[in-house]
Amino acid sequence: MSDTSAATPVPTPGTSTRQPAAARGAAHDSAFLRACRREAVPHTPVWFMRQAGRSLPEYLKVREGVAMLDSCMRPDLVKEITLQPVRRHGVDAAIYFSDIVVPLKAIGLDLDIKPGVGPVVADPIRTRADLERLRPLEPDDVRYITEAVGLLVDELGATPLIGFAGAPFTLASYLVEGGPSKNHERTKAMMYGEPGLWADLLDRLADITAAFLKVQIEAGASAVQLFDSWVGALAPRDYRASVMPASRKVFDAVAGYGVPRIHFGVGTGELLGLMGEAGADVVGVDWRVPLDEAHRRVGPGKALQGNLDPAVLFAPESAVRAKADEVLAAAGALGGTGHVFNLGHGVLPTTDPDALTRLVAYVHEATAR
Amino acid sequence: MSDTSAATPVPTPGTSTRQPAAARGAAHDSAFLRACRREAVPHTPVWFMRQAGRSLPEYLKVREGVAMLDSCMRPDLVKEITLQPVRRHGVDAAIYFSDIVVPLKAIGLDLDIKPGVGPVVADPIRTRADLERLRPLEPDDVRYITEAVGLLVDELGATPLIGFAGAPFTLASYLVEGGPSKNHERTKAMMYGEPGLWADLLDRLADITAAFLKVQIEAGASAVQLFDSWVGALAPRDYRASVMPASRKVFDAVAGYGVPRIHFGVGTGELLGLMGEAGADVVGVDWRVPLDEAHRRVGPGKALQGNLDPAVLFAPESAVRAKADEVLAAAGALGGTGHVFNLGHGVLPTTDPDALTRLVAYVHEATAR
Repeated sequence: MSDTSAATPVPTPGTSTRQPAAARGAAHDSAFLRACRREAVPHTPVWFMRQAGRSLPEYLKVREGVAMLDSCMRPDLVKEITLQPVRRHGVDAAIYFSDIVVPLKAIGLDLDIKPGVGPVVADPIRTRADLERLRPLEPDDVRYITEAVGLLVDELGATPLIGFAGAPFTLASYLVEGGPSKNHERTKAMMYGEPGLWADLLDRLADITAAFLKVQIEAGASAVQLFDSWVGALAPRDYRASVMPASRKVFDAVAGYGVPRIHFGVGTGELLGLMGEAGADVVGVDWRVPLDEAHRRVGPGKALQGNLDPAVLFAPESAVRAKADEVLAAAGALGGTGHVFNLGHGVLPTTDPDALTRLVAYVHEATAR
Repeated sequence: MSDTSAATPVPTPGTSTRQPAAARGAAHDSAFLRACRREAVPHTPVWFMRQAGRSLPEYLKVREGVAMLDSCMRPDLVKEITLQPVRRHGVDAAIYFSDIVVPLKAIGLDLDIKPGVGPVVADPIRTRADLERLRPLEPDDVRYITEAVGLLVDELGATPLIGFAGAPFTLASYLVEGGPSKNHERTKAMMYGEPGLWADLLDRLADITAAFLKVQIEAGASAVQLFDSWVGALAPRDYRASVMPASRKVFDAVAGYGVPRIHFGVGTGELLGLMGEAGADVVGVDWRVPLDEAHRRVGPGKALQGNLDPAVLFAPESAVRAKADEVLAAAGALGGTGHVFNLGHGVLPTTDPDALTRLVAYVHEATAR
């Protein structure tokens, strides 16, 4: 399924001499992984959702003339783009550069990412017969992922790499609507009107997502984040009945690896407890819910990630620090660990990269123990 | 400021023989106003945000060739469009057809509503000097409103008319950004970086909004809804410090009329308590927060409005009824009154109007006492 795998030499699966557990070993005591495990940390670790991408001039340069999905299938580019924010900002973790529709492309669906629009699916999934097009994902479908993760963990050393996948609900929304949707009318019509078909659709997507995360973990990723970008469009009752079983299936499938499982969606204040229950070790929180309140909703035994409003980075430095202080103060409710500092949503495209670099330094300094 | 007032005869303010309180008298015992006041009701009243507008073929017909802002300034059109959903659906209240930027246009700002985009402001408000362009709104600036409300209350009889205005935060976002914004970067940069300027901007907008609502109430509106479309982009701490004083000023300014004051914004689960505190008698709730939980957040002494997911109307009738039942069951927490049934956001443009008509009948039937 890869446009580029034929041109790029990749190791044959099963013959690699890489020991994923060993590759992860170097990062085992990193502040990021310690915080995910709620162990004592030398400082609060920091990374940013969408840190790899549009806000960096060096990213725009390497992407020149390369379509988004093509860039996700070129290990050299994935490696470079994933490393760029680590070099520039000194963040505590790298996030694997990809797109949530990559596994769907990899099983042969006809879709593309249109600049300024987002993922567009040529032939949406709306009937039971359409489900047949969602075949299982095999590691051979994404050999470029195995290769890119291998290159990355070699280079990253003690800096952990976070694997990445879109969650079943969000993937389903793209597939059912045929592209990005503000109101998810068709998706919800299926969810409410054809609950059996809906459950089967999400179940297939859970298997694909789990296989996609396993590839990344087996190649050496130290943690995974399951992004449910659109799930904030649901009320708790619907999440529990119609989405949680599939998300739980994904988390259960990778539980045996012992890598922290992060779960995030924007606008999910009402769902935080359920997203933890689904199997997350770390619950990502958007900026609308203070972390002390999020801690009450998620309950003990889970770490939290977040949650500076990404728009704050457009304010003067003193205001950024004051708002970061508010986040750190609210994180105090967690008892001194179990907090991964992040934004409450992805880095906005026009963010000044220097503001991000300064923020990393500030959080490290303010939380040094 | 009106494009049409020269062509349309309107009563001179102060010479009208209308008695607004008397005009409202006919609607005083309506189910809608009784529910707003938390009195016993014959059935749960129903209306829909955006019931007047794009979902109705008869609306599209009367709007043919008429620009949005022009339609808001023509009393004949406002009357017809406001009445259409009352005739068709049998809803328990009419909502005055307007747009939140109408008062800004009325004080002379150069702005327009671009189809498919939204309000666009030619020269955004970003400095202290820019504030001077926000002069107070006088009743003479919106004589077409006085006229249209008068025509409407004559025609509506016992059906209450809800007046309408955008809240200071949302108006500020349009003015600062220069148009619709997904992330409100410039707005928040001003809010965090220049709090004095921000407070003065919101204060001026509060005065304009209050004057705009007063015109509608004095002409005979039986209730008002203050829409804060974008305020769900804020965390509670920021709402309290930077927005609530202005919203409270609006509510306080119209408190003396004794008409119910409704307040709504989408995605405001974290803000419901504060939006009540700001001075609302009725707090609108989006579909993400079940009404029993909303009641806990808002506290006793306030009515609630909402909150069926507008996307549910794309599912089969049986699913719509089941979800409406869930809303009514959760509203039971209010103790048998104080619930105005509505959607959890505006009617979506492609909604089947018949589904709305059936929903009104169903809620009336299911709640008949």
